[in-house]
Amino acid sequence: MSEGDTEAAHEAIMQATYRALCEHGYADLTMKAIAEETGKSKATLHYYYDTKQDLLVAFLEYLLESFHEKVQLRDDENPAAQLTTILEKLVFGPDDYKAFQTAMLELRSQAPYSDAYRAQLRDNDQELTALLAGIIERGIEEDVFQDVDPDRTATYLLSTIDGARTRWIVLDDDDVLTTVNEELQDYLAERILVDEQALIK
Amino acid sequence: MSEGDTEAAHEAIMQATYRALCEHGYADLTMKAIAEETGKSKATLHYYYDTKQDLLVAFLEYLLESFHEKVQLRDDENPAAQLTTILEKLVFGPDDYKAFQTAMLELRSQAPYSDAYRAQLRDNDQELTALLAGIIERGIEEDVFQDVDPDRTATYLLSTIDGARTRWIVLDDDDVLTTVNEELQDYLAERILVDEQALIK
Repeated sequence: MSEGDTEAAHEAIMQATYRALCEHGYADLTMKAIAEETGKSKATLHYYYDTKQDLLVAFLEYLLESFHEKVQLRDDENPAAQLTTILEKLVFGPDDYKAFQTAMLELRSQAPYSDAYRAQLRDNDQELTALLAGIIERGIEEDVFQDVDPDRTATYLLSTIDGARTRWIVLDDDDVLTTVNEELQDYLAERILVDEQALIK
Repeated sequence: MSEGDTEAAHEAIMQATYRALCEHGYADLTMKAIAEETGKSKATLHYYYDTKQDLLVAFLEYLLESFHEKVQLRDDENPAAQLTTILEKLVFGPDDYKAFQTAMLELRSQAPYSDAYRAQLRDNDQELTALLAGIIERGIEEDVFQDVDPDRTATYLLSTIDGARTRWIVLDDDDVLTTVNEELQDYLAERILVDEQALIK
């Protein structure tokens, strides 16, 4: 197969995995269900991935790449606007389907039992932390952000968002995302921005 | 059986459930394993609880009661000191055994599939939110806290703590609790307290 074919197959399998997770949840997800979503045979799926775990690790990596593609950051953008946008994207989506997030929480709860999941989830988290810390660092350099600790602030922001999304799923509480987002925006304005007006500069 | 006997049996079963969750995790937890921890027969356990789910709902309720017992709040205490103490307790413990929190995350990830779990987790969460909001309200009345929205602030604080604890388990990252706690203390000082000195008043 050509590289283009492999890439197209990979994309098709990843999208099928997403749909299968939404439909079956994590615990009941099978290679057969994913194969059915691709319209390919189970054997074809196993040609690419030995086990369901291998496939799901690739899927976690795919989620990170998709996120990067969606939030293309330009260096000439205002870091304040950038941080606001990215936090909102992280709180509310991009994949704001409850069924999908329900499956993701189950998968994450299995990380203590799977070195492969945990390693990939740590990679995703480190990249996300570095992305936020990078924006914060640039904001400090450009004198639009206060002199906060970039890594500590990034870890704090990601923890708040993680908790809001976990509670959204566990408690089935749709208000929690809006409430936490409002408070996060206030936090940005008062604890991070030098000047609230920086947002509309 | 006398009421005292029933209470003692309840306490023994709850403590056995705690130990069994630490040892077996959530997915592999059985009534048999819990019975073995109590030293009672499985039949005795079923006399009190029809199903594992019934038992675990009672256990979630027990956790909430234990927390209340541990954080007995006195109305004449400084609300600033009270809030600091309770947030630290929530971030770091009281049951800071990773094995137990690993099992709890699995149980919580099943809430979307279990009305009984979800209802009890919502009860626990509402009580905790009300507890924090109550302290914040009292702090505002006593002019030691800024005029924040008590419910919104409580939801925000609990989300941050939830996220820190979830990341601690999922990413196996021991630093996250300390990092988030530091930032939370700064948040208290700058966004909630009227005067940082209020803490040592």
